[in-house]
Amino acid sequence: MEILDEILLRIKPTEEENKRLEEVINSTLDKLRNFLTNVDAEPILVGSVAKGTHLKNPDVDIFIRYSTAYPREFVERNTMEIGSKVLENFQRRYAEHPYVHGYADGFEFDIVPCYRIENSKQRITSVDRTPFHTEYIKNHMKEEMKDQVRLLKQFLKGIGIYGAEAKIEGFSGYLTELLILKYGTFTNVIESASKWKAYKVITIENINEKNLYEKFKNPLIVIDPVDPKRNVASALSLTNYSIFIYASREFLKNGSTKFFFPSEPKIENFDNRDTKIVHIHFKKPDLVDDILYPQIKKFERTLLNNLTEFQLLRSHYYVDSEIHIILETTILDLPNVEIHTGPPVWSKNSENFVKRWEKKALSGPYIMDGRFYAEVPRKQKSIEENILKIISVNSIGKDLDKLKNEIIIERGYEKIDGLELTKFLKKKFPWEY
Amino acid sequence: MEILDEILLRIKPTEEENKRLEEVINSTLDKLRNFLTNVDAEPILVGSVAKGTHLKNPDVDIFIRYSTAYPREFVERNTMEIGSKVLENFQRRYAEHPYVHGYADGFEFDIVPCYRIENSKQRITSVDRTPFHTEYIKNHMKEEMKDQVRLLKQFLKGIGIYGAEAKIEGFSGYLTELLILKYGTFTNVIESASKWKAYKVITIENINEKNLYEKFKNPLIVIDPVDPKRNVASALSLTNYSIFIYASREFLKNGSTKFFFPSEPKIENFDNRDTKIVHIHFKKPDLVDDILYPQIKKFERTLLNNLTEFQLLRSHYYVDSEIHIILETTILDLPNVEIHTGPPVWSKNSENFVKRWEKKALSGPYIMDGRFYAEVPRKQKSIEENILKIISVNSIGKDLDKLKNEIIIERGYEKIDGLELTKFLKKKFPWEY
Repeated sequence: MEILDEILLRIKPTEEENKRLEEVINSTLDKLRNFLTNVDAEPILVGSVAKGTHLKNPDVDIFIRYSTAYPREFVERNTMEIGSKVLENFQRRYAEHPYVHGYADGFEFDIVPCYRIENSKQRITSVDRTPFHTEYIKNHMKEEMKDQVRLLKQFLKGIGIYGAEAKIEGFSGYLTELLILKYGTFTNVIESASKWKAYKVITIENINEKNLYEKFKNPLIVIDPVDPKRNVASALSLTNYSIFIYASREFLKNGSTKFFFPSEPKIENFDNRDTKIVHIHFKKPDLVDDILYPQIKKFERTLLNNLTEFQLLRSHYYVDSEIHIILETTILDLPNVEIHTGPPVWSKNSENFVKRWEKKALSGPYIMDGRFYAEVPRKQKSIEENILKIISVNSIGKDLDKLKNEIIIERGYEKIDGLELTKFLKKKFPWEY
Repeated sequence: MEILDEILLRIKPTEEENKRLEEVINSTLDKLRNFLTNVDAEPILVGSVAKGTHLKNPDVDIFIRYSTAYPREFVERNTMEIGSKVLENFQRRYAEHPYVHGYADGFEFDIVPCYRIENSKQRITSVDRTPFHTEYIKNHMKEEMKDQVRLLKQFLKGIGIYGAEAKIEGFSGYLTELLILKYGTFTNVIESASKWKAYKVITIENINEKNLYEKFKNPLIVIDPVDPKRNVASALSLTNYSIFIYASREFLKNGSTKFFFPSEPKIENFDNRDTKIVHIHFKKPDLVDDILYPQIKKFERTLLNNLTEFQLLRSHYYVDSEIHIILETTILDLPNVEIHTGPPVWSKNSENFVKRWEKKALSGPYIMDGRFYAEVPRKQKSIEENILKIISVNSIGKDLDKLKNEIIIERGYEKIDGLELTKFLKKKFPWEY
């Protein structure tokens, strides 16, 4: 396929770039080894660069693998110390552990601590398994498959579903590599995916267990060859699984470079919808994405569950210097009257219900079928009042809860980023713009 | 109870009125007998006057009981013929059969045909059972109970639930009499009713059957002593059953004449509700209530089921020279955009769904979880357009269907009868005004 050659030219590092990268990596590993002469630990190159499946300008992942004899505090402190000596412009970052992010000769590096375990099932921290993944791919992936991995990665990036992190809920690099190991080429993966149904189970190594779908309940199940208890695709959402199926079908029909390199959407006018827009925004706290995004999603879910009376059509969120949640509704103000459902007429509480409302009710208390009802003045009429009430009685995530007082709620889309508004309201697939 | 004596004075016919009534009835029966000399049939007085439980200005019910040897056509034609000779200002009216309504010396009469059957279980038409009911009450009701029946009838009238017809769905005269037979006095009935729960089973004659609630499923089950297969209270709605319980409780707390003779509600202003009113009206067709009201209810039900997007709070109907249905909603116009749910991404139809909407959709087609969705321009936006559409695709009752083209739909309550609007929006119990 000519188009794939063209894509490869754009994404594959040149030999020269790779040579320079190798030199920088070797020098960095040497420096680290020097700092580790008195420690039972060794630096190892892992990730896509180690496996030779990286795209241009890759992130280089170096793990420092410690003896399990060391306590966590030492491992973390020591990694920070030597990492900060080896990298330029270093930052302390956090996943399950702190790690060091920085640069060496213009390349981006992560230096991450882990434990030396004998096999991947004994993992102590979630990254302890990574060296086994690197090893597995290095041992099993044929040379010609590496470009196929690069194509699949770029395809997934282009259609917006590359990355297993909470922000994306898509395909990890390792998952991409396993798919190429299974199907051999990019085109074979796409052809297979175009026919996937409600769920798909993929095994690389032989495995005796049956009913793997019942066990994992994820739409895509790819059994980890280094730990058969684990589904490598567990982070993939049903939406992104479905988008992959549809994108594969569409790519096979009209293979366009747009699937790999989509255009930006053109900003449009949305006056033809006749709906109301509510824009909720507040300062982004200093949190890593994997902590931040689940909380934003929780906040969004809490709003959706509690604002049904406003007839929500859809919602959307995005993050810049602020967190933004956008709601599209049919109404912004509820009527003054609200129907309260009371107890059955023959129940003991019914006297209290009648007493409580007989003076205050706008209608009733009256009886319908076997129950009392009263129509009473509503406390929160506007969507703003309702959102503030929802925020005050619900947790919107451990860290976002601290920002409850800074939340701004506005009607209309004037302050919404035009590109995000277009993505939200147009809601085309990336390759369609 | 002094109050009951006072009520009785207002509702019980005087001896003089009763004497005059008896003379008119006897003379009418004589005239009918003269017309029936060559027919195997006899006129009989039935209903409340026959049983001595009538209020002032009663309707007099005379049945002409024919041998079962006569075909229906003869029975109906002959009754019309002689009824029209005996009554003044006569009208042909219809229930299950035609019957004659008219006047004799200022009293209102109904002359109704039925068949002479040996016991009430052999009934051919629904009125054949009536003479057995009359006979049963005449044989079992003690003289002092008759005033108690009158009180209970007036109480039920006052609280708006007297009459088993479709318009009311309340208590029939016979049911009222059976309740007094069971409990002895008006006050005893009210005291019992105040304690009724989700349903109540009452038997007059001994009956072996158990699980009568399972059999009938009505909230009030009063087994007919002349036909144990029948529930005399089958027409009573759950709402009216519950109102009876509550009214009984309230009357015991503060026995007021208002329960028997409620005031008219004062017309009020309803601008404090912040809701929208839709008024649907059209000429009342020439139909008897028992045919008309079920169709109005069906129409109302069809509207309620199909207009949920407008967030209906409640509805109400009334009949004058027109049929009026009133809806109270939160919105009157839906947005231009409407969300269409499509098939799962992996289904065969999904290609068609995408093709159908990819040009016309305002948003999408997009994927959420495993499905396609498209947001498309809505066809019917206003509630008027939606009501017309609902009317055009649904039956609103055999006779109302013929009037579909004459239905007027208006926003606002300007043309709604003030008293009906007050009943609808205030929704107090009759004794509370």
